[in-house]
Amino acid sequence: MTIENISQTKTFGGWHKQYVHTSNVLDCAMRFAIFLPPNASKSQPVPVLYWLSGLTCTDENFMQKAGAFRMAAELNIAIVAPDTSPRGEGVADDDAYDLGQGAGFYVNATQAPWASHYQMYDYITKELPALIESHFPVTAVKSIAGHSMGGHGALVIGLRNQESYRAISAFSPISNPMNCPWGQKAFTAYLGSDKANWRQYDATVLLAERDANLPILVDQGDADNFLAEQLKPELLVSVANKNNHELNLRMHAGYDHSYYFISSFIADHLVFHAENLYK
Amino acid sequence: MTIENISQTKTFGGWHKQYVHTSNVLDCAMRFAIFLPPNASKSQPVPVLYWLSGLTCTDENFMQKAGAFRMAAELNIAIVAPDTSPRGEGVADDDAYDLGQGAGFYVNATQAPWASHYQMYDYITKELPALIESHFPVTAVKSIAGHSMGGHGALVIGLRNQESYRAISAFSPISNPMNCPWGQKAFTAYLGSDKANWRQYDATVLLAERDANLPILVDQGDADNFLAEQLKPELLVSVANKNNHELNLRMHAGYDHSYYFISSFIADHLVFHAENLYK
Repeated sequence: MTIENISQTKTFGGWHKQYVHTSNVLDCAMRFAIFLPPNASKSQPVPVLYWLSGLTCTDENFMQKAGAFRMAAELNIAIVAPDTSPRGEGVADDDAYDLGQGAGFYVNATQAPWASHYQMYDYITKELPALIESHFPVTAVKSIAGHSMGGHGALVIGLRNQESYRAISAFSPISNPMNCPWGQKAFTAYLGSDKANWRQYDATVLLAERDANLPILVDQGDADNFLAEQLKPELLVSVANKNNHELNLRMHAGYDHSYYFISSFIADHLVFHAENLYK
Repeated sequence: MTIENISQTKTFGGWHKQYVHTSNVLDCAMRFAIFLPPNASKSQPVPVLYWLSGLTCTDENFMQKAGAFRMAAELNIAIVAPDTSPRGEGVADDDAYDLGQGAGFYVNATQAPWASHYQMYDYITKELPALIESHFPVTAVKSIAGHSMGGHGALVIGLRNQESYRAISAFSPISNPMNCPWGQKAFTAYLGSDKANWRQYDATVLLAERDANLPILVDQGDADNFLAEQLKPELLVSVANKNNHELNLRMHAGYDHSYYFISSFIADHLVFHAENLYK
């Protein structure tokens, strides 16, 4: 697994770097970004927070807009931001912003024309961490977070791989994709019409079906235009309460779906992850 | 002077808002953004930091990428980010990124085809603050900062209007535009070939010619690709030292020209401005 460095920028005493590599899982070239705190070194490797972005995003949105580096540097945590889908001319796409490139939904697609490249679940859970852990001064200790579609991804991936992640956090996650337009459209395309195959990618279903031993933090703005129709975090809370799962949903009055919301509370998420990554 | 609100987003307990208005000085529609800290109100108005952006930027770059709101909220400072030039189909432009729209250089142009709209110096020093002070819960106490072309703008505007601003700060400013390619190209186009007319817009010349009573903070990365050819902050320091001006140039090892650099040190600038705005 070779990777090619395409940018490196000093920030908050650490480094923001971008790389391209050929993904075997996705069968295309992929770009990711990593923030390395000032004190990360081979002799002092650091834990990693994986950040999954939302619809239309690349590796850049979080790194440029979240304002996460100050606290990540202070807490000695690396952050990895992958792209949100396979990319490139040979990769299936759709004109809509919520399907195809930029909208991988962190699933392994089974349906044509998507199945040949859209294997984001395996990319995020297997190929990418293996690559990160082999090339950077990081430990195998990791946690996962994300926004909107990426909040869905973080919840699903964390809940299905609790041995691999110390904690999950999400901003404005698509909490019950089987029951919202974004999720239904994507799951029908990528997974087919048999809803039995959707359940493994629905955080509310997963949280109802299995024990969750890792802590979950969710932040949601009540002025988010997508809250009622697409996000529905109250369903997550409902099943968590029923099953005594540790889930902290914080509703924030007046905040919307943007990075202005994320940046306002990202420091809390980093502290939450650090507490679990270093315990 | 009427203004139209086109976005408002809660962030760090305060508000990021964008407005459009018809500028009489620039004779076109202009957009600006303002950050209002949580406690700003008509009964408790706050001082304002004006941020001037660099080449190709709009009102959005600083607001999205600088990570300034946490500290501005804490210090109770409003931030106003104007656009970097007049805009629109009827406004002269050039295919190059460093001339025309997005590259106003904060001067009052005297040459065709620029003079009819490119009056950014008057816009920033007169029309915009009058508009801000009439529409928002702010005082007339202000300071000014900027990046690259906007660092040049902040230095020139602050030095020529010392009665109006409490402090100046700049990241990676074009410090001696008469003697670098960016400045020579822009000044020739906007001001004509007589260099006597350029001097009023050159911070190094201004600092050599007049007393500066307001404090100046300049941050510069030593891995900035534009440092040697375009920026030359050492010339500023040289004239400041010669004339006993208060200018603090901080060189930062390994940092470049990007917002990853700005975000790393913006908190220091906000503290510097707050100390002067509230003294």
